[in-house]
Amino acid sequence: MSRENAFIDLLRGIADHPAARGLKDDCAVLPMGDRDLVFTHDMIAEGVHFLPGDPPEDVAWKLVAVNLSDLAAKGATPIGVLLGYPLAPVEAWDARFVRGLGEVLGAYATPLLGGDTVRANGPRSFGLTAIGSVRPGTAPSRTGASAGDGLWVTGSIGAAGLGLEIALGKRAPDARLLDAYRRPVPRLAEGQRLGPLVHAMADVSDGLLIDARRIADASGLSVTIALDRMPFDRAVEPTRAARLSAATAGDDYELLFAAPAEFAPPVAATRIGAFSEGSGLNLTECNTIVPLSFPIGYEHT
Amino acid sequence: MSRENAFIDLLRGIADHPAARGLKDDCAVLPMGDRDLVFTHDMIAEGVHFLPGDPPEDVAWKLVAVNLSDLAAKGATPIGVLLGYPLAPVEAWDARFVRGLGEVLGAYATPLLGGDTVRANGPRSFGLTAIGSVRPGTAPSRTGASAGDGLWVTGSIGAAGLGLEIALGKRAPDARLLDAYRRPVPRLAEGQRLGPLVHAMADVSDGLLIDARRIADASGLSVTIALDRMPFDRAVEPTRAARLSAATAGDDYELLFAAPAEFAPPVAATRIGAFSEGSGLNLTECNTIVPLSFPIGYEHT
Repeated sequence: MSRENAFIDLLRGIADHPAARGLKDDCAVLPMGDRDLVFTHDMIAEGVHFLPGDPPEDVAWKLVAVNLSDLAAKGATPIGVLLGYPLAPVEAWDARFVRGLGEVLGAYATPLLGGDTVRANGPRSFGLTAIGSVRPGTAPSRTGASAGDGLWVTGSIGAAGLGLEIALGKRAPDARLLDAYRRPVPRLAEGQRLGPLVHAMADVSDGLLIDARRIADASGLSVTIALDRMPFDRAVEPTRAARLSAATAGDDYELLFAAPAEFAPPVAATRIGAFSEGSGLNLTECNTIVPLSFPIGYEHT
Repeated sequence: MSRENAFIDLLRGIADHPAARGLKDDCAVLPMGDRDLVFTHDMIAEGVHFLPGDPPEDVAWKLVAVNLSDLAAKGATPIGVLLGYPLAPVEAWDARFVRGLGEVLGAYATPLLGGDTVRANGPRSFGLTAIGSVRPGTAPSRTGASAGDGLWVTGSIGAAGLGLEIALGKRAPDARLLDAYRRPVPRLAEGQRLGPLVHAMADVSDGLLIDARRIADASGLSVTIALDRMPFDRAVEPTRAARLSAATAGDDYELLFAAPAEFAPPVAATRIGAFSEGSGLNLTECNTIVPLSFPIGYEHT
């Protein structure tokens, strides 16, 4: 078991409030008057979630976007965020970070409510708490998929993974792809429309395959995904290797959801697989099994 | 201006939502149905807020207690917390931290709602978001003191400062004092009774003198404090030096509030000063001015 999973297992021993959802979901959901409140806290770490050379504006954008993406997966509307900020070694970095923070918060009409700063040494990690709200009882969980449900994904997959390759100098520059990696778009509007309709939902943060398997695991089911049905970004080359790379790269922040096979999604979405009795992930390409002899996504350390 | 203050000034440029209170308060307060929600996010850093050798259980306790203390200063009842946790170099440390987390959350009936972990290098900082709620319109701010109000403080002052000296090996061991430093008690019950009655309130985190001056500054007033009226812990020696040390050491997490001079507090509290027109802090001892030729508390870096 990874160190993170071991720690979360310990936390589960003390997180017995129903709102915590057993720490098995990306958000807590708590009834509060005529709304359900939705809470999430995600951190991004230098060298893991962003690169030391990334523009500070983009680090701020990504920090907020990954948290709003968790709210999107609950169908929630943002209420506000609180920031945990280690001061940068260079003051100009702070100012650029705040500029990016203003941009992303403005783009998603989300107020900054507060936060705290500390002095940092070494690689920095930023924390953000995002709070949202949703109509009572409408926030989908990760655990609600049913056997027979289809697996669906919004938008397209793979641009962020290619953007990371560019950021790492492994691929020729392309502003659109780099932006997809550095400035992901939380699918808030899509999530709000899908939330009350779907059986389970999560965002694609660690890789489509691993995120889909987590929905299956949490729902006590198996999931079969057709690689040839996946809506790849137009820059993903039409080879199995490139497609597998896109399906495991993560950072797309599209929404992945379980809904009946005949579901007519109210937003742009593609059915790419199905849930059934059993456990685990099966990947197919043109009805042939693809052996899973590779990491299917980002496993937290 | 300190780096932290410069950064917060930048943030103020984008924190224009009224709930953020101009980032001049310890908490955000947001109306939500038939309650006001209260949000705070405080970090504690190794070497600043706790010592590398402190027991992990106590680090967890302090992290939660300092955040619940901010809720207490708004008169709020805790709803839950979210944790930002850098994994320890040694796994056993994590398990002890979780034990302390369970203790403090149990003591204050506060659910763990979620959080995130990262790998850390170097000194670690922990972030916590605490969420509470309060009857609408009853959360006091830091800015509400009136000229003529008394300055009051709950409980007693100075035990935590002596505890820190013990932790640093500068003083003979004393379990009670060490506990006051490592396991502060958020004054939630006191805050809930005081909140609807007082004009302004804050907790004593950085030092009584500096925290009182911040209330005065935020309220556009001056404050005069009588050192000889302060309710010092019984272990504080009756010398001016020891009393000044206690009044500037911080970490007591008592509640400091502004209320009319004739106020009859519903909890154990002492009137130690008064607000008046003007600005700044005056300290007296037996009606004689004490020159402020020393740091009056912890200034954030």
